[in-house]
Amino acid sequence: MKLQSYFQGQWAAPSANLIEIASAVTGEVVAQASSGGLDMKQALDYARAKGGPALRRLTFHQRADLLKKLGQAITERKDELYKLSFMTGATRVDNMIDVDGGIGTLFAYAGKGRRELPNTTFLLDGVVEPLSKGGTFAGRHIAAPLHGAAVHINAFNFPCWGMLEKLAPALLAGVPVITKPATVTAYVAHALARMIADSGILPAGAFQFVVGSTGDLFDHLTCQDVVSFTGSAETSQTLQRHPVIAREAVRFIAERDSLNAAILAPDAAPGTPEFDLFVKEVVKEMTVKAGQKCTAIRRAMVPSGHVDAVITALREKLGKITIGNPELENVRMGALVGLAQRRDVLAHLAKLRGEAELVSGDPDNFNVEGADAKRGAFVPPLLLHCADARRAASVHEIEAFGPVCTVMGYDGLDDAIALANRGGGSLVTSLYTHDIKTAADLTFGIGTFHGRLVVIDRDCGKEQTGHGSPMPQMVHGGPGRAGGGEELGGIRSLQHYMQRTALQGSPTMLAGITGSWTKGAPVVEEKHPFRYHFDDLAIGQNFTSKERTITLEDIEHFAHFTGDTFYAHMDEEATKGHPFFPGRVAHGYLLLSFAAGLFVDPDPGPVLANYGLDSLRFVKPVQPGEAIKVRLTAKEKSPRNRQYGEVRWDVEITTAAGDTAATYELLTMNAMRA
Amino acid sequence: MKLQSYFQGQWAAPSANLIEIASAVTGEVVAQASSGGLDMKQALDYARAKGGPALRRLTFHQRADLLKKLGQAITERKDELYKLSFMTGATRVDNMIDVDGGIGTLFAYAGKGRRELPNTTFLLDGVVEPLSKGGTFAGRHIAAPLHGAAVHINAFNFPCWGMLEKLAPALLAGVPVITKPATVTAYVAHALARMIADSGILPAGAFQFVVGSTGDLFDHLTCQDVVSFTGSAETSQTLQRHPVIAREAVRFIAERDSLNAAILAPDAAPGTPEFDLFVKEVVKEMTVKAGQKCTAIRRAMVPSGHVDAVITALREKLGKITIGNPELENVRMGALVGLAQRRDVLAHLAKLRGEAELVSGDPDNFNVEGADAKRGAFVPPLLLHCADARRAASVHEIEAFGPVCTVMGYDGLDDAIALANRGGGSLVTSLYTHDIKTAADLTFGIGTFHGRLVVIDRDCGKEQTGHGSPMPQMVHGGPGRAGGGEELGGIRSLQHYMQRTALQGSPTMLAGITGSWTKGAPVVEEKHPFRYHFDDLAIGQNFTSKERTITLEDIEHFAHFTGDTFYAHMDEEATKGHPFFPGRVAHGYLLLSFAAGLFVDPDPGPVLANYGLDSLRFVKPVQPGEAIKVRLTAKEKSPRNRQYGEVRWDVEITTAAGDTAATYELLTMNAMRA
Repeated sequence: MKLQSYFQGQWAAPSANLIEIASAVTGEVVAQASSGGLDMKQALDYARAKGGPALRRLTFHQRADLLKKLGQAITERKDELYKLSFMTGATRVDNMIDVDGGIGTLFAYAGKGRRELPNTTFLLDGVVEPLSKGGTFAGRHIAAPLHGAAVHINAFNFPCWGMLEKLAPALLAGVPVITKPATVTAYVAHALARMIADSGILPAGAFQFVVGSTGDLFDHLTCQDVVSFTGSAETSQTLQRHPVIAREAVRFIAERDSLNAAILAPDAAPGTPEFDLFVKEVVKEMTVKAGQKCTAIRRAMVPSGHVDAVITALREKLGKITIGNPELENVRMGALVGLAQRRDVLAHLAKLRGEAELVSGDPDNFNVEGADAKRGAFVPPLLLHCADARRAASVHEIEAFGPVCTVMGYDGLDDAIALANRGGGSLVTSLYTHDIKTAADLTFGIGTFHGRLVVIDRDCGKEQTGHGSPMPQMVHGGPGRAGGGEELGGIRSLQHYMQRTALQGSPTMLAGITGSWTKGAPVVEEKHPFRYHFDDLAIGQNFTSKERTITLEDIEHFAHFTGDTFYAHMDEEATKGHPFFPGRVAHGYLLLSFAAGLFVDPDPGPVLANYGLDSLRFVKPVQPGEAIKVRLTAKEKSPRNRQYGEVRWDVEITTAAGDTAATYELLTMNAMRA
Repeated sequence: MKLQSYFQGQWAAPSANLIEIASAVTGEVVAQASSGGLDMKQALDYARAKGGPALRRLTFHQRADLLKKLGQAITERKDELYKLSFMTGATRVDNMIDVDGGIGTLFAYAGKGRRELPNTTFLLDGVVEPLSKGGTFAGRHIAAPLHGAAVHINAFNFPCWGMLEKLAPALLAGVPVITKPATVTAYVAHALARMIADSGILPAGAFQFVVGSTGDLFDHLTCQDVVSFTGSAETSQTLQRHPVIAREAVRFIAERDSLNAAILAPDAAPGTPEFDLFVKEVVKEMTVKAGQKCTAIRRAMVPSGHVDAVITALREKLGKITIGNPELENVRMGALVGLAQRRDVLAHLAKLRGEAELVSGDPDNFNVEGADAKRGAFVPPLLLHCADARRAASVHEIEAFGPVCTVMGYDGLDDAIALANRGGGSLVTSLYTHDIKTAADLTFGIGTFHGRLVVIDRDCGKEQTGHGSPMPQMVHGGPGRAGGGEELGGIRSLQHYMQRTALQGSPTMLAGITGSWTKGAPVVEEKHPFRYHFDDLAIGQNFTSKERTITLEDIEHFAHFTGDTFYAHMDEEATKGHPFFPGRVAHGYLLLSFAAGLFVDPDPGPVLANYGLDSLRFVKPVQPGEAIKVRLTAKEKSPRNRQYGEVRWDVEITTAAGDTAATYELLTMNAMRA
């Protein structure tokens, strides 16, 4: 099969320079990829001219719907991906991580987009910042989708998950994607790209797929583009140092080599559940995807006294791993992705053996089930032991990207912290402890060197999602050697594809541009604002109530009715000398309740319900005999569906003397016009 | 005067290779700086070993206090800085921007640190993310100060503000600083550094000051360090492409060249206040600091029909600018920083004149008051007009870093947007319009190419803080040519000096490590939690109330008492078919009030007041006859002062059937033990 690129909405035949891609299991050629020949500037221009504007016109909820539909469309055809993936050496479990994990990421972003984002085309970032005494000048930050393209360069190990986990946040942010798979597993990515294109779900130009080299693409990048790279540190550094990256300050997100660690804490002695969880996790991370995971455990750190017990336990479990044709039910570990990868891993192993002893597995002598060990890219799990990890260098620096892990002893937590940080920045480290103090000391000792920390103990052992599994909700990436990038992490990842801009102006301008009313912007007082349907309600619609005096009787009545007889409401004597209260004061909840009574418009109408309240602060206590009134102003609107939408109201309770007694934001659900 | 470096807590004499620094006004040598000779690795190691740990032990509020004290100490000696600054060519107004602006930034961060940050040593980032069905595994992000140093490389134009605006967020984040001034104005920075060192306010190692070259400093950077650079695009790119930056993924923040624009909108015709504000701002930005500001207006974009009027108005105002010795009261514009800078500006001017005509100012013929025009680095304001800005290149690319600006005509908003974005990313653009639609169209047309947009009109004209003035509350920096960095922006800027880490584990572990209770973590039920002083209250202290049945009488009574007779509480018939309510329901505020009655412990005690409430959501309506109870759990604590601290409580109202009716976070102020 000749793999094609999806380019300007067309599938493009590869040019002459074809590269052959072999099955990891049989060594047979399974696909041919082109080494280039496409005009990369055209791809960027198409994304910028077509995909970007189309996506930017959609709201976050509409973009979230695209992701959901995409997830559904791929789910229907996922067996095709499973079938192809076996040829990459991956087992059925490995494929689930890749295929189902990728689809799950689409659904996770679809859900988060719906639940956590407003139904708008851009985001407000933070609150209004007053910038003048008289209140005529203020500032606010907005975040809007970049006007360029997201260039996604993926690693070979997760052709589906890698593509989709980068695609989801970019599309949700409103930025079109050009995705380039690693060539050696490009036939799987190609099948996935076909499904995406076939589905017709995305607007034209929102998705392009380039097999082969990126050619001169980097020469045409601007400050509106983003590069997100996953792969080796070497390639990453070459790309990052491309002159255009610095010249145009192109955003460059890298996720690369990492010497991730698992730390068995001193309390997790043999016989504890944490010891067993540690052994289980190390074996899992060595063998899933044949250890070809950026997040796999490369360094297993254990108290010196437990080194022998750990090696014994690991050796026993690793010895039971069946290696071979990944399509077979009983095979636990498949092949590396190809023979070149096997050569790399064995070369790295040789270097590691200069400082560490091979204690389990023999690369020259192991069983392979249902496949030809000479033609497929098989290696067995290889466990090393480094006796002097403090002096060793290679075990902290060389990532053998296969089923390879080094056990090393440590003496005391400070030593464990120093060793873990010798990795120079990692994606993830897992801690095996049931002791909170130990977990906290390790967390703050190694936290800033890591993108993710997982504390695994008996309480979460059954449900924990795995040392090596990035979750869409949590940041994936890490400092230093791991590339310094961040992917995933829920809605946070959208900021990589958006520009934050500080906006300054009069409150009227800020409100008009952002669609968020702020104090000082004009108000409109016509009908009661509860009388407008969602569609008709203008930001700034305002209601100011009449006054109501709060009597001592009101306070006492409220106290006895609700049961809230706190002394500051009931007892003048006991309140004397109170740091905040000048004497008996009204209940905060009494103020809220009276305010509702003052602003509510009781008859059926477009306001369906008050569904919440945010950022309530009682600013100044109200004493018996004081009068209050309330102002209610429509602040923001976000449509929810065709029936109704959310309205956020700015509310202020003031005293007759003009002091602010309380401020809050009220949330209502308002019906749309029929 | 031989300038010294402040290095490992000592003032170090400069080594042999001395560079002479001349007065911008008289050309006389005013100081000598060394070109290096210091061991940069030692400076980094000292910051990491001494300054970092000392700062990390402090809470955000304690670090904020350091900034406040530093601001006070510098204020007392600021006249020394003014005096020296005249030699840089700066007028008294220029000096206020530099000196008072810098001090103001310290105070602004001190205030924001106190008000907007908890009194802790690290930050929580976002909410708890559930990661398992059974609730035994979850995630949360933390942000902790990096374990390295902040290397600040500053520009010559603002020796005080530049140092302090970078210092404030780094120290508040908890990261020690090594600051390097630009050599040509290093004598001012040196005086400021002396004040900081003399004050003895900062812990040892928190502040170092290096005059001269950075030598081999970059060779020793790691993923725990941050470089924040302000200066030319050329130097910035060289530094950014240093191999260690990519290899270690060192954070690199750049703020560099920028072809900032001012856009006169079509509605701002001659005779409008906006036209006058535009003219005033362009003149101000050309002449303040003799145009040596990264944020100065380089491109003045005006509707084609108003080009002549604009040039006439600018020419008239620019002609009145008195140039000369900046110490003189009547001098409005001083000298450029030195003769080399004048050569640069004139060389850039020559290039610009290839595409634009000089319409005001003559570099070879102008008056200089109170100084020798031949010895000082004087140039007059130089206004150009580019007749075909669409075809021109240099006017969008060459930043003449002096009193130089080019007027260009545009036809329609789309053309203005295209021209503005031709700058390839800028720090700031100002818009002069009184029309909201125009402002919004421009904002979304050019927003992603800009770090900041200022809308200037008659409403804010008197109070607006200026096109060229970065405010501590707002992000300073811009995409593309402007370097892609972000500085300032309030608390946002702390994240440049902190590592975000995804933390996963059981709720017990998460609560134990972060000090923030979460559902599923253990609760403690001994005394009523309101009976503990702040010091003694443990996270997880819990109270579950008895039940209270809400009767129809309660609802009707509450309605008439408060005046909240909304139909969904009062009228079964009217509520029929309601999308959320199954029939008449209790008021949300009734639930809150009864909940307070159920959990309050009325007698005087450590809880001083309920001062607010966050994130209230009414999850499920409660109908007459249903019983509710409330759970109150201590979630987070943040000491405020020696008398009291804030406690955040997780509150849940449930029905007798076990459904959640409402969730919120309650805020109380709790007394410390005496």
